Amino acid sequence: MSEIGFETRLKVSYEDARQKIADALKAEGFGVLTEIDVKNTLKQKLDLDFRRYTILGACNPKLAHKALEAKLDVGLLLPCNVTMYEDGDEVVVTAVDPNAMMMVFKDDALLHEVAAEAEAKLKRAIESL
Amino acid sequence: MSEIGFETRLKVSYEDARQKIADALKAEGFGVLTEIDVKNTLKQKLDLDFRRYTILGACNPKLAHKALEAKLDVGLLLPCNVTMYEDGDEVVVTAVDPNAMMMVFKDDALLHEVAAEAEAKLKRAIESL
Repeated sequence: MSEIGFETRLKVSYEDARQKIADALKAEGFGVLTEIDVKNTLKQKLDLDFRRYTILGACNPKLAHKALEAKLDVGLLLPCNVTMYEDGDEVVVTAVDPNAMMMVFKDDALLHEVAAEAEAKLKRAIESL
Repeated sequence: MSEIGFETRLKVSYEDARQKIADALKAEGFGVLTEIDVKNTLKQKLDLDFRRYTILGACNPKLAHKALEAKLDVGLLLPCNVTMYEDGDEVVVTAVDPNAMMMVFKDDALLHEVAAEAEAKLKRAIESL
């Protein structure tokens, strides 16, 4: 458990980790809608060398729809990020905890219910890796 | 000001709003790295009709790099979301307040400094629309 997410470490190649993450998310109903190659972006924009680091935007359409119906502004917190980065010969994978994110909307019971459901799914996905 | 972001309303077409947002972000050093067409996604995945709603992932590479150097986990909160959606004949545009997001990392002074810088830039971008 990182400060705001669920973390695990994989001893597989970066490419294999990427595939395993997509499969684990899919099993919980999340598709990967966006992908940012941080290393490549920093190289291109700033000519800086950075470790391999990828930000995946994962979305469970049913939960996203419920959340948006509860509060239209919730798009500011979507999709749920899953990050992966190199650390020596391991790949560190972390999924954001939707509960932590939704804390910014303090008094919305339905939203917190949806966040708890998303949390359980993402937690299972990370634990299954 | 919405609960967790800076909001404005534009009386222009959706396409013109999209272009104005990209231009305003660019003027503050933010590129649009990701784009989620929420209406289209919900139609494709769930066959649901939803208003036009777009989630843009905006990134200022210099600030993102500073933030990642301060705390590797910060990728869980990147990029900065800017949402736009139809509301009658207006387009509502909201940029997330990076300060609100970074609150989840309570005790990191450098991170809060970077968030404040990102906040000032995003606020100016929205005000310039």
